[in-house]
Amino acid sequence: MAPGLFIDGRAAASLPLPDRGLAYGDGLFETLLVRGRQPAWPALHGERLSAGLARLGIPEPPWRDHLASSLAAVDAPAERWLTLRLTVTRGDGPRGYAPPATAVPRTVIEIAEAPLDPLAAPAPLRTALARLRWARQPALAGLKHLNRLEQVLAARECRERGLDELLVCDTAGRLVAATRGNLFLLRGDTLVTPDLAACGIAGTRRRLLLDTLAPALGLAAEVTALEPAALASADALFCCNSLRGIVAIGRHEEQQWRAHPVIERLQAAYREALCASVG
Amino acid sequence: MAPGLFIDGRAAASLPLPDRGLAYGDGLFETLLVRGRQPAWPALHGERLSAGLARLGIPEPPWRDHLASSLAAVDAPAERWLTLRLTVTRGDGPRGYAPPATAVPRTVIEIAEAPLDPLAAPAPLRTALARLRWARQPALAGLKHLNRLEQVLAARECRERGLDELLVCDTAGRLVAATRGNLFLLRGDTLVTPDLAACGIAGTRRRLLLDTLAPALGLAAEVTALEPAALASADALFCCNSLRGIVAIGRHEEQQWRAHPVIERLQAAYREALCASVG
Repeated sequence: MAPGLFIDGRAAASLPLPDRGLAYGDGLFETLLVRGRQPAWPALHGERLSAGLARLGIPEPPWRDHLASSLAAVDAPAERWLTLRLTVTRGDGPRGYAPPATAVPRTVIEIAEAPLDPLAAPAPLRTALARLRWARQPALAGLKHLNRLEQVLAARECRERGLDELLVCDTAGRLVAATRGNLFLLRGDTLVTPDLAACGIAGTRRRLLLDTLAPALGLAAEVTALEPAALASADALFCCNSLRGIVAIGRHEEQQWRAHPVIERLQAAYREALCASVG
Repeated sequence: MAPGLFIDGRAAASLPLPDRGLAYGDGLFETLLVRGRQPAWPALHGERLSAGLARLGIPEPPWRDHLASSLAAVDAPAERWLTLRLTVTRGDGPRGYAPPATAVPRTVIEIAEAPLDPLAAPAPLRTALARLRWARQPALAGLKHLNRLEQVLAARECRERGLDELLVCDTAGRLVAATRGNLFLLRGDTLVTPDLAACGIAGTRRRLLLDTLAPALGLAAEVTALEPAALASADALFCCNSLRGIVAIGRHEEQQWRAHPVIERLQAAYREALCASVG
């Protein structure tokens, strides 16, 4: 399958300039897992995107139409898993940081093969604490915006250290997330995840776990401030994101965790919900 | 004059995708003032850009060649002031935050009329303290990178409040800068400006003031942590950036300052140095 690139719903190879997405990272994105032409959990992605656009004051473009026309134009077998990145920028505007009074946003959709099979059992991760710490910015916390240099630096550190993932604290020393997804701890019958009021991305799979999967399995869910010391006493640890689903951490720094039945039940429930979501 | 747009030194109307500059803000930029075909203080811009590329691990593209060929292609009278934005992105790369091992960076050059005459005497600014605070991130502090959503939010706040500029603190309550430039206080015979170890952009005109203009006028220069309370006792306040030069603050919140002879001498010295710089 050839990768597909679409701007405002039409096949395109390049972005018209100027664009504030390039100039200032003035925009947002979503990474959707797709099977055939059906995105997984489109409502979760759509609600986050709409809320983010409202917070940044970017008018909502007809991205649902663009999504549908882009997927209709991609030549992929119905059983194939795809990754679809949907970027919304504030579009063109006069020179300078101040956003135009009436912006005409652009959508950029990039479709490619999924990097891995989301129904396969993922190998547990080897992680460590990142040396890099992320900045605390409540005005942007939770958003999946285009200002992602901190993730780029953390991913570079992860590769240099030869690890699968890094767990990242903010500059106040509180746990935020993994470089590529949200972080959960299992404590007895409770799932615990860092609160994201100051920092981090509020992932769609994090929300799915908190709102749907945890209650369905009889687990409590807690969102709270966490320091790295909390990791050592957890019964199990895992990360989640839209492409990898739920992935256990097998080793963090010098500590190891065996496969945990609750994580395996969550993974099974996730895969079942994913298949239902993509029809 | 038609605005000019150049990618890797060649006239172009759009950016090839994917590009990590759009995807993650993975890149840097410089805003140069140009007269005819001569950029002002190219060495100051070039040194900051090179240092930033090294910190982000982006190979240095032949941007000097691209700058020269772009300026050669623009049809502008020799006495005309232009603004030139030079953006360097990490270019294409595989999906995901991790930068490619061997990146092929892109340069994007956008040339337009300067928004104002840099030799005209600028009107003093009305400013206030921004409600938005900027995040502290030492790993990115000082760089003029593409992650500028905080400036966008601050510029929006500035427009909503009907002011010329806002002075912005970081989340620890320390003064950082104005939304569109660096901030200086005059205290007796000393120029004082916030240190940028945790936050902010190290402007080329800030460096020119610290290294060249202040010593030439017999002024001391101090870089230090500053809180908003320091503003009230300053003899004068001013902002600086590449397009506006040195602009006095006439009123901050409820306090007013008259034109100060030292600021006027700095402005005259700046204009003289600017004319010498563009030949």
